[in-house]
Amino acid sequence: MGLIVDKILLGHGSGGKLMHELIREHFGPSFGIEGFSDAAILDVDSRKLAFTTDSYVVSPLFFPGGNIGDLAVYGTVNDLSVSGAEPLFLSAGFIIEEGFSIERLKDIVLSMARAAKEAGVKIVAGDTKVVNKGKGDGVFINTAGIGVLHEGMEISPLRIRKGDKVLINSEIGNHGIAVISERNGICFDPPVVSDTRPLNGIVRSIREFGEDVHFMRDPTRGGLATTLKEAALESRKNIRIRETSLPIAPQVKGACDLLGLDPLYVANEGALVAFVSPGSAEAIVNSMRGHAHGTETRIIGEVEDSAESMVLLQTRIGGNRIIEMLQGEQLPRIC
Amino acid sequence: MGLIVDKILLGHGSGGKLMHELIREHFGPSFGIEGFSDAAILDVDSRKLAFTTDSYVVSPLFFPGGNIGDLAVYGTVNDLSVSGAEPLFLSAGFIIEEGFSIERLKDIVLSMARAAKEAGVKIVAGDTKVVNKGKGDGVFINTAGIGVLHEGMEISPLRIRKGDKVLINSEIGNHGIAVISERNGICFDPPVVSDTRPLNGIVRSIREFGEDVHFMRDPTRGGLATTLKEAALESRKNIRIRETSLPIAPQVKGACDLLGLDPLYVANEGALVAFVSPGSAEAIVNSMRGHAHGTETRIIGEVEDSAESMVLLQTRIGGNRIIEMLQGEQLPRIC
Repeated sequence: MGLIVDKILLGHGSGGKLMHELIREHFGPSFGIEGFSDAAILDVDSRKLAFTTDSYVVSPLFFPGGNIGDLAVYGTVNDLSVSGAEPLFLSAGFIIEEGFSIERLKDIVLSMARAAKEAGVKIVAGDTKVVNKGKGDGVFINTAGIGVLHEGMEISPLRIRKGDKVLINSEIGNHGIAVISERNGICFDPPVVSDTRPLNGIVRSIREFGEDVHFMRDPTRGGLATTLKEAALESRKNIRIRETSLPIAPQVKGACDLLGLDPLYVANEGALVAFVSPGSAEAIVNSMRGHAHGTETRIIGEVEDSAESMVLLQTRIGGNRIIEMLQGEQLPRIC
Repeated sequence: MGLIVDKILLGHGSGGKLMHELIREHFGPSFGIEGFSDAAILDVDSRKLAFTTDSYVVSPLFFPGGNIGDLAVYGTVNDLSVSGAEPLFLSAGFIIEEGFSIERLKDIVLSMARAAKEAGVKIVAGDTKVVNKGKGDGVFINTAGIGVLHEGMEISPLRIRKGDKVLINSEIGNHGIAVISERNGICFDPPVVSDTRPLNGIVRSIREFGEDVHFMRDPTRGGLATTLKEAALESRKNIRIRETSLPIAPQVKGACDLLGLDPLYVANEGALVAFVSPGSAEAIVNSMRGHAHGTETRIIGEVEDSAESMVLLQTRIGGNRIIEMLQGEQLPRIC
């Protein structure tokens, strides 16, 4: 007998398997769309726009390296960026709990303004709502964003081909560990700092390889593992990555060991995974390395010709571990 | 000595004076914008787009005539419509409290799909987040929307002229009273039903009068009084309306008497206020009356040539009452 889930669980917000089921079963059919991807591509008067939305409910609101404000700006900037668009305009909707400090709200708003400036986008529309004390949690922020597609770029998991190289621009796991350490009052030396930052610049740096960049995504909730599994499922290909190539900071590895977490499933907010043609892979790696947010860029794996949609991690000792999507919830309210 | 407010009050979400101060002092300067208007007008490749966002935190989630789902669709459709745009695409962001019934969520999502169909818009992007039990309130929904400006229409309070006629399409106060009666378990016979509905059709019906339609707004939070006062302040004109012309259903009037509310400040979700050239006013009224959501359209007042930015209500007995913006909070969480 299967378990019937009739109430929302924290895991429904995980970015993993439960969330996918919820969206596939209830939202997709009602809205007449396949599901919620990073950004929708719209035809407006024969011009292609990207449009996306995300709500941010991170707890605590302030963490090493950022706060809910810059996270809300960069997160939406990044969703547009990985869809192959240059982000232009953002909206910001605030749901504030009665009694929240106006001083803290001001800090958050100022962070958003700084982040928007850093990313070169404009916050042009907004809304504030207030809910009774005990019916919210400080502040929740929704941002929606509009971007214009880069000409010559067509980003889709359906363009992933056998032999494609899988790249990543940076270490993984930093954001999730930074938030969880702040939440639980754990310190690391050196401290683990969130990687929250805008990815539109680094995407711009590989625009010239347009055709050869097949698919990109930012592995946030659910981590790198979930992003790769989604790509494998949507492209109907196998993906093989090498554990020895995965960049993980020693203190993140240590924190994960301590907390019983797998860094492959820990959220990132400034990581970019790209699937690119093997012939251009090295040139693309070099371009990305030339950008401030890509100095650590490397190839971590390849796409294989098999329709099993499996993600295989070649371990340090030579074995193969099958990587599944995040099940349930590892770290709630991470973004 | 003035009172120093350093914490968010429910009144900061009212749509009235406190909210205006919060936005003017903290959001506007940071984001480099004047404030949050109904929709921002964007130039994307020389094409004019309207872009808007709103979060919905109505309590209870279901009320006579609607629920948070259709409210979230129609509210954003209406913000685009009154900015003179045809709404095209919506995003939907859900913040769901752990433990919320999936069956109820499904009902809300289905209502959104029906509302989108009714309004002729597409929900193309979405996001779901889950917060711990006791850190939310069932479900909050954010919708953002993109529309294309109607050619020949330029909607701005700066276009309001002396002599302009002020029109309204329907009764006022129904939405607020419907929600508050459900919240407090009060029944009316006949029941008061929310007016939540899309206004893009009725705006389309007066598109041909483009030039002569100077300003439109949907008087939601803060009610008709706050909308008129905003228009008076932004246009630097006086506005005079006649109490005898104001359409208020008898049971709304009765409920307001009972609850100590002023219907002028009670929220609407399907009302449209328009400022139009006097020469075309009658023709515009006739066009609006020809639309299903405008059968009750009437002229309720005029714009006067005075820079005091006053709103004057000519009372039934011949006196003049000065109408100010909503102070504090009358009905929290009404939308």
